[in-house]
Amino acid sequence: MAHTLILLRHGQSEWNELNLFTGWVDVRLTELGRAEAQRGGELMKEQGVLPDIVHTSVLSRAIQTANIALDHADRLWIPVKRSWRLNERHYGALQGKDKAQTLAEFGEEKFMEWRRSFDVPPPVIDPADEYAQTDDPRYVGIDGEIPGTESLKIVIDRMLPYWEGEIVPDLKAGKTVIVVAHGNSLRGLVKHLEGISDDDIAALNIPTGIPLVYELDDDMKPTGASRYLDPEAAAAGAAAVASQGKK
Amino acid sequence: MAHTLILLRHGQSEWNELNLFTGWVDVRLTELGRAEAQRGGELMKEQGVLPDIVHTSVLSRAIQTANIALDHADRLWIPVKRSWRLNERHYGALQGKDKAQTLAEFGEEKFMEWRRSFDVPPPVIDPADEYAQTDDPRYVGIDGEIPGTESLKIVIDRMLPYWEGEIVPDLKAGKTVIVVAHGNSLRGLVKHLEGISDDDIAALNIPTGIPLVYELDDDMKPTGASRYLDPEAAAAGAAAVASQGKK
Repeated sequence: MAHTLILLRHGQSEWNELNLFTGWVDVRLTELGRAEAQRGGELMKEQGVLPDIVHTSVLSRAIQTANIALDHADRLWIPVKRSWRLNERHYGALQGKDKAQTLAEFGEEKFMEWRRSFDVPPPVIDPADEYAQTDDPRYVGIDGEIPGTESLKIVIDRMLPYWEGEIVPDLKAGKTVIVVAHGNSLRGLVKHLEGISDDDIAALNIPTGIPLVYELDDDMKPTGASRYLDPEAAAAGAAAVASQGKK
Repeated sequence: MAHTLILLRHGQSEWNELNLFTGWVDVRLTELGRAEAQRGGELMKEQGVLPDIVHTSVLSRAIQTANIALDHADRLWIPVKRSWRLNERHYGALQGKDKAQTLAEFGEEKFMEWRRSFDVPPPVIDPADEYAQTDDPRYVGIDGEIPGTESLKIVIDRMLPYWEGEIVPDLKAGKTVIVVAHGNSLRGLVKHLEGISDDDIAALNIPTGIPLVYELDDDMKPTGASRYLDPEAAAAGAAAVASQGKK
């Protein structure tokens, strides 16, 4: 039996627009981001790729994206699960900092290492920093597991238990699953699904707002190439993500 | 220990505006309905009445209301549960019919009996009717339980198992619960909580978009009077609902 998995990266957020490192800071979508989510939902509806259950992070921009997309796919009523394990990568002390300014301050080498290396996290955020999530009610009870910074490797290590424990069982139950999340949590999942190497994952960019569909076998391996529901927009979007922070 | 329960009735829908019997027909909120939901969320945030978990029906207008209200209460990330048992009353063959026209056609006595009697349902809807929910994917698997018409009594009978089985356990676990639903499913719940008689419930009108807060004891009995987070708007809203269908 083939299992259908849909990945959806949230659209433009208030801080994407401002070119700030966001990470776990809980910013909302912009109007453009809301329009991207709507388009994502319309693509699913038009092409009849309809989820039976939705998994999101606990960050508002992913949840807003899921809510808007499902509304326009006429699937608001499906069951919902959320987990911090699908959150964006925690950017440590970079959270709230301007990307271009960080690039100028630390130089391209350090900047690219933090952004794109597999296992080098930025400096840990100070718990007293205004952009730390200290005392954020959504993380109460899991305080011991909450990171102060993350590399992509750390993201994958905390994301995979949720994939195995919560998402795979839904797929194996015959449900079409949509995961609405973030650039790095989705890159981590794609790396896992496709067996991409630690080096090669740096070059993978997932565009925003365009549903990415995998057909998986019973071992949760792709039965063929994944496909975007709007391939042309996806190619343009991935190129735009790759150039981010360079303006 | 006191348990906090918040009830929220969805705001104006496309068919409220058109003065049609809606029931289980899955219409969306109007712009006014969205504004009501936003105000509901702002009231919760301003007054610090913040839910830990949300229960909704499977109808889009309630889910949209929950999504918008939680966004403005900064609580998008809380766990979500949905059930058809929180749906609006099924209006049977009246679904899709104009209220004023139904009043003129059948007379005030029949009209008021269908609208406000405790246990007289309207005629059953024809499964081939365009406003029946035949083959609606959200009801797949529960076909045997799906009604073709409902009185308020039937609504209460199918709602209470969900109250006892899903909502009460969350309250007993110490969570502040919000239930986002409909005029009749919420009237049924209020009737149960307050021990209102079958006769007296006819006069109870719950206004839209204004959170209604109960404090409950361990037996799920109110420890005092319930309160709306905007009492003046609630009084005006209830009067408006009472006059519905009379224009």
